[in-house]
Amino acid sequence: MKKISILGSTGSIGQSTLSVIEKFPERFTVVALAAGNNVELFEKQVRQFRPSIVSVVSERSAAELKRRCSDLSVRIFSGVEGMIQVAAAEDADITVSAIVGTAGLVPTMAAIRAGKDIALANKEVLVTAGELVMAECRARGVRILPVDSEHSAIFQCLHAGASTDIRKLVLTASGGPFRAFAKKDLANVSLAQALKHPNWSMGRKITIDSATLMNKGLEVIEARWLFDIAPGKIKVLVHPQSIVHSMVEYHDGAVVAQLGMPDMKGPIAYALSYPERLSDVSPALDLAKVGTLTFEEPDLDRFPCLAHAFDALNTGGSMPAVLSAANEVAVKYFLEEKIGYADIVRVIRTTMDAHRPSNINTVEDALKADLWARHEAEKVIGAGVKGQGSRGQAI
Amino acid sequence: MKKISILGSTGSIGQSTLSVIEKFPERFTVVALAAGNNVELFEKQVRQFRPSIVSVVSERSAAELKRRCSDLSVRIFSGVEGMIQVAAAEDADITVSAIVGTAGLVPTMAAIRAGKDIALANKEVLVTAGELVMAECRARGVRILPVDSEHSAIFQCLHAGASTDIRKLVLTASGGPFRAFAKKDLANVSLAQALKHPNWSMGRKITIDSATLMNKGLEVIEARWLFDIAPGKIKVLVHPQSIVHSMVEYHDGAVVAQLGMPDMKGPIAYALSYPERLSDVSPALDLAKVGTLTFEEPDLDRFPCLAHAFDALNTGGSMPAVLSAANEVAVKYFLEEKIGYADIVRVIRTTMDAHRPSNINTVEDALKADLWARHEAEKVIGAGVKGQGSRGQAI
Repeated sequence: MKKISILGSTGSIGQSTLSVIEKFPERFTVVALAAGNNVELFEKQVRQFRPSIVSVVSERSAAELKRRCSDLSVRIFSGVEGMIQVAAAEDADITVSAIVGTAGLVPTMAAIRAGKDIALANKEVLVTAGELVMAECRARGVRILPVDSEHSAIFQCLHAGASTDIRKLVLTASGGPFRAFAKKDLANVSLAQALKHPNWSMGRKITIDSATLMNKGLEVIEARWLFDIAPGKIKVLVHPQSIVHSMVEYHDGAVVAQLGMPDMKGPIAYALSYPERLSDVSPALDLAKVGTLTFEEPDLDRFPCLAHAFDALNTGGSMPAVLSAANEVAVKYFLEEKIGYADIVRVIRTTMDAHRPSNINTVEDALKADLWARHEAEKVIGAGVKGQGSRGQAI
Repeated sequence: MKKISILGSTGSIGQSTLSVIEKFPERFTVVALAAGNNVELFEKQVRQFRPSIVSVVSERSAAELKRRCSDLSVRIFSGVEGMIQVAAAEDADITVSAIVGTAGLVPTMAAIRAGKDIALANKEVLVTAGELVMAECRARGVRILPVDSEHSAIFQCLHAGASTDIRKLVLTASGGPFRAFAKKDLANVSLAQALKHPNWSMGRKITIDSATLMNKGLEVIEARWLFDIAPGKIKVLVHPQSIVHSMVEYHDGAVVAQLGMPDMKGPIAYALSYPERLSDVSPALDLAKVGTLTFEEPDLDRFPCLAHAFDALNTGGSMPAVLSAANEVAVKYFLEEKIGYADIVRVIRTTMDAHRPSNINTVEDALKADLWARHEAEKVIGAGVKGQGSRGQAI
């Protein structure tokens, strides 16, 4: 029986994780859950899966949850301290890191330090502090099992060769809803258009990142650390059908790819059960029915976010954290319809240009760069820092 | 330094194998070679690679080779005995079995009994005596490393999961030159048309087998034994571009595929160097340049050879040997333009229908079934057994 802790259980990945766990009650049990402030849904999860420790973001939500769950023996925490309690829950074997944004960094690092294996869905953990996080994993003998479909695909394909045999990791990208848009038409796209992903049903922030291709950029940076691969060996290929989830090109010329229907339960289950594979997790792929798969080079001119991500990766140090934080702020404002689609890349680039990169030697360094970028991005947007804006990442 | 013996060095696979060996002189050395009767080419190979033992089919060719190579210290043999000497050459680490047809069975079995690992390009070895051959491999601790691009692909993809995780092996087929032909037009296709494979440059016999899809049928039977997989778990998918070489569908819904440019040097090098991968063996695959990959179900009505192969596999015993031998005879006559394209399947089916299947407990049983089918097929063709017809397989 594998004991699981989930950070971000009410989010898209969190809910899919619980539906996988629900399907295999003889294999998995939930010992700890952390959520945002969706107390109603969280109460249902707590009642169904009976974790011994849970946490929500605000004290107010914690009080509300305590009132609702007074008949249960669950321990209820809140804030960053609560997330850390859940992340490092004493009896957990593996911690699912599915909080969106930089908010995931501190609890994920706490889980690693407690020796938990990590099923990683949060991109920012490796984007902002990849070198640091991977060094900590090596020191603690902790495994990071990717939950992103692309990284899961690469992780699976890497079994077909040695790491020294890799010529390239090829991350596929659907190209998002604007793949075929002319550059001039991209200036005026709406929020509703950007939220219509052609293949995947995901959270709102990641859906916007897919439209700008920033999602792929963050995945490139994540792959660099997760697989300890030189940035020049990572390639992005646009594949609109989202059937080939990613590939590894070996130096003999062989390419190994992982395919499947677009469905997050596959990568989640693989991360939870690795090296075993569970039965009937994802819908079966019928390639004859799919019929056609197409591939094209990404257009960095129309999707400059991807170029900026490579740029940040090559600059290194704090620059990827700044890229990610500026993007998080820009996307938040875009989702609130306070800025336009074209402003997203402008905010990111302007913030990056204003940044003097430094080394990330500690989690605090990463958070400092992150905070600096949030302030700077808000300045660029001209909206100032209002309320809890700088901590307003969705959980 | 890996010491290599090659059965069928002047054939298409044999020549490609030597070109791989030539590229990596620090890794491979040739210790034994067997060829057919192309003495001129064989002499060049012997002079270049300096094996210590060689063999040709006829005594006459052996005499000719001795005359030509009198300045070399090579030992020259002929006939089945010579092939066995080469197959089991004392200092060989691995024997490349690349003789086309049932002629490959006896020497390959000799190599296995001598404890040599086998790089297997010959399909008939497993088609005619798969159960027997694999049992012998297990008993001797011998590995069979597939050289067919499809089986090599599956072999690579199988690293991504346990054998108990397999839902299906998916063998891709180009569909051959007649993929888009209407059934009525298939009756009158010419030899020249059948020899024009859209993607692969191969030997003549296998090129015809690709046109009828019998090649895929033989590969299905081969896969059944090579990977110890139930026949119902093997699926064929038509993929005209021949970029996806084959796939494994796991029971969680994940599909792992191996892709590459159509080039035999990749699978050959992989078999020779496994588990390592050599550098720059096959041309690099540029999927954006390829652009489109398509997939469709095979049409068993237009390509009945594939259905007959599944039929033979399900019947078991000597039936696959009969299928293969009848096909070999039919293709030989078709290549000599003595029968038409539509006659190939008629000869095979009629021969199978006349056969009462028995168990294959020994190599002799396999050869007996093979010989019976050759006579029967010749009878069906109405040409009788002429000259060395029944042993007239190309080497």
